Amino acid sequence: MKHSFININGVLSAAVASGIKNAHKLGNNQNKKLDLSLIKLADDTQTAAVFTQNIFCASPILVAKNHLQYDIKALLINSGNANAGTGVGSASLGLKNAYQTCQMAAEALGIKAEQVLPFSTGVIGQPLPIACFANNISQLTNNLKDDNLPNVAKAILTTDLVEKTASAQIKVNGKIVNITGIAKGSGMICPDMATMLCFIFTDVIATKSKLQNCLSVAVNQSFNRITVDGDTSTNDACSLSATGKSGVDIDEISADFQQVLNKISQTLAHKIIKDGEGATKFVEIAVSGAKSSEDCLQIAYTVAHSPLVKTALFAEDANWGRILAAVGRAHIAYLRQSDVSLYLGEICLIKNGQIDPTYTEEAGSKEMQKSQIVIQIKVGNSDYIERVWTTDLSYDYIKINAGYRS
Amino acid sequence: MKHSFININGVLSAAVASGIKNAHKLGNNQNKKLDLSLIKLADDTQTAAVFTQNIFCASPILVAKNHLQYDIKALLINSGNANAGTGVGSASLGLKNAYQTCQMAAEALGIKAEQVLPFSTGVIGQPLPIACFANNISQLTNNLKDDNLPNVAKAILTTDLVEKTASAQIKVNGKIVNITGIAKGSGMICPDMATMLCFIFTDVIATKSKLQNCLSVAVNQSFNRITVDGDTSTNDACSLSATGKSGVDIDEISADFQQVLNKISQTLAHKIIKDGEGATKFVEIAVSGAKSSEDCLQIAYTVAHSPLVKTALFAEDANWGRILAAVGRAHIAYLRQSDVSLYLGEICLIKNGQIDPTYTEEAGSKEMQKSQIVIQIKVGNSDYIERVWTTDLSYDYIKINAGYRS
Repeated sequence: MKHSFININGVLSAAVASGIKNAHKLGNNQNKKLDLSLIKLADDTQTAAVFTQNIFCASPILVAKNHLQYDIKALLINSGNANAGTGVGSASLGLKNAYQTCQMAAEALGIKAEQVLPFSTGVIGQPLPIACFANNISQLTNNLKDDNLPNVAKAILTTDLVEKTASAQIKVNGKIVNITGIAKGSGMICPDMATMLCFIFTDVIATKSKLQNCLSVAVNQSFNRITVDGDTSTNDACSLSATGKSGVDIDEISADFQQVLNKISQTLAHKIIKDGEGATKFVEIAVSGAKSSEDCLQIAYTVAHSPLVKTALFAEDANWGRILAAVGRAHIAYLRQSDVSLYLGEICLIKNGQIDPTYTEEAGSKEMQKSQIVIQIKVGNSDYIERVWTTDLSYDYIKINAGYRS
Repeated sequence: MKHSFININGVLSAAVASGIKNAHKLGNNQNKKLDLSLIKLADDTQTAAVFTQNIFCASPILVAKNHLQYDIKALLINSGNANAGTGVGSASLGLKNAYQTCQMAAEALGIKAEQVLPFSTGVIGQPLPIACFANNISQLTNNLKDDNLPNVAKAILTTDLVEKTASAQIKVNGKIVNITGIAKGSGMICPDMATMLCFIFTDVIATKSKLQNCLSVAVNQSFNRITVDGDTSTNDACSLSATGKSGVDIDEISADFQQVLNKISQTLAHKIIKDGEGATKFVEIAVSGAKSSEDCLQIAYTVAHSPLVKTALFAEDANWGRILAAVGRAHIAYLRQSDVSLYLGEICLIKNGQIDPTYTEEAGSKEMQKSQIVIQIKVGNSDYIERVWTTDLSYDYIKINAGYRS
């Protein structure tokens, strides 16, 4: 997965500093950070997408969900304003604005408005500054290039500290399939500013329904498994576009494609967690042996969301009591303490419900001092295993989230 | 409910500084804080109890659950050691010790071991210092008095800053029924030290099954509705003992009794929340209008557990976006944004999904500066309403929980 950035044949893009960022404070065009991106997809490109499950999703999500039934030819992405909390109902200002930005992009590109997927991330409760779009659409259209995706990776950021990109190749019968993903999000810390957005591009040939299946599997094993504080955004979205330019059909490489797509998604998801503001640890929680995947996941999330476990991680305290207490309240009725074993990295703390006689506090402390920590919890003998990724809970989490307001 | 402390006829009690607190650090008998209590119940007293639902409950909970089927004549309560994480299985040291302490109390009182309910709270993973019990049982027995409950209220504390007591009377046909509860717990912040224990005593005449019903209702509306961080303890327990000394049968006052018991339980539960270490706000979250009580509760807990909402409370920031985002991810599929209204105290922020035109940030800020905050969320037109109580998430929460270790 350590691959340098690969541009995808059939994907043209451009990004500008349109002034959306802080427009509600400074007036339009006063901020010089990249914040508006246009992506033009080659003819015959197929696009799939998944969206936030928050019932109160933002207007661009509603529009994108609707447009996804058509042939998508462009993505229009802004940061700095989420166009969320901007009214409800089919006549709301938010919906009107989201649709209008699609129209602008469509006119400039000579396509239909419903062939544009809009994405927004940023402050909520502020009207989308439409003028920033109007003033910059022709510049964006004129700047469309096949190597501009790294700029888009910058332009979609809000509170993120670093860009998040991942590329990979699959070689098959002398041909190469390329996949590149870009993402933003710093740990879902602020549902308004830290929306998770991810755009994945590939040159494989695939139908929309196959892409949709592959994307659902990948998202479920990556973005849906990261949690900083259990909060989700009104604007989360992830798309997968396949231009077909490699000449390779997905059916020739379907297992490989899924595996690489999973890996790209996980790499980006982990980068989001690591960029979580206030995070000092990257933590994998792996739960195995329950009677189903769902039960494994439920235990993993209960541990991952426990503020007591998370503060112990921050304190580098191998507090197995807090982890066991979280396992015990995960509402898995058949769990027996005598079936539970707990490992930090390779070190066994609890073996079949009892403190492992070889365990020492020193060994536990040493493991907790690492910046990447793996907590393994075995609750039975089944082959099910599920992993989620999270961070610690630090002073900075409070500082950032108590101090932050648009 | 503002009633001074009432001792209950038929309840004798005593508390001593037995040295259990910090015994594992200092050796037995080096700590001079009250930590061991014995309560002797008059003949014919009926006792009901509810216990933690954490699967990994502590040894005294297992013993108490078993003993509850017999006629309970005494409660034996220690603080400083939870007798939790002290082995699993029927031959564990923890179970053996818990049962042995019941035997000691039974011998001293001339009753059977299974007529004693044991309760423990304190550090986990340390063997119960049995010698502290053995050395003090006769002193406890000799000191049993009818006005010692306030000392027991002190002796059951661990990290609590204040004792928690509540008393009330019901007058009926010239007779008086008295109810007094004592509790400990500081917000379930540490599952080991902040176990919730509550002991309620009354002189009403009642069968065990009626008491059990009343107690379940009361606990469900009080202790089960408080949450600081979603974590529950391995040792939580609440008992209700009725001595019958008032001469009034519960059937004569059954609605009143339930109401007063609910109120006593809520008063004690609120005192636990207010004593939550690191808490700067006492917050009621009232959700109404969903299609069931369960749905109202699910929304209320999702808001109450949201670290983003809790940090906004600490920051005194009327961040309705975070509250709505939490409502939206509560997995209530039929919710519509246009049905949602949100109030802080009497101030309407969101009316039918839109910002109320009369709302000002000043009014919101003023409400958030109060130490007691009521967040009302209306999600539909049903008559269901459910309340939970919680606190903010402050720097001190991190400090206490990252710094704390036995």
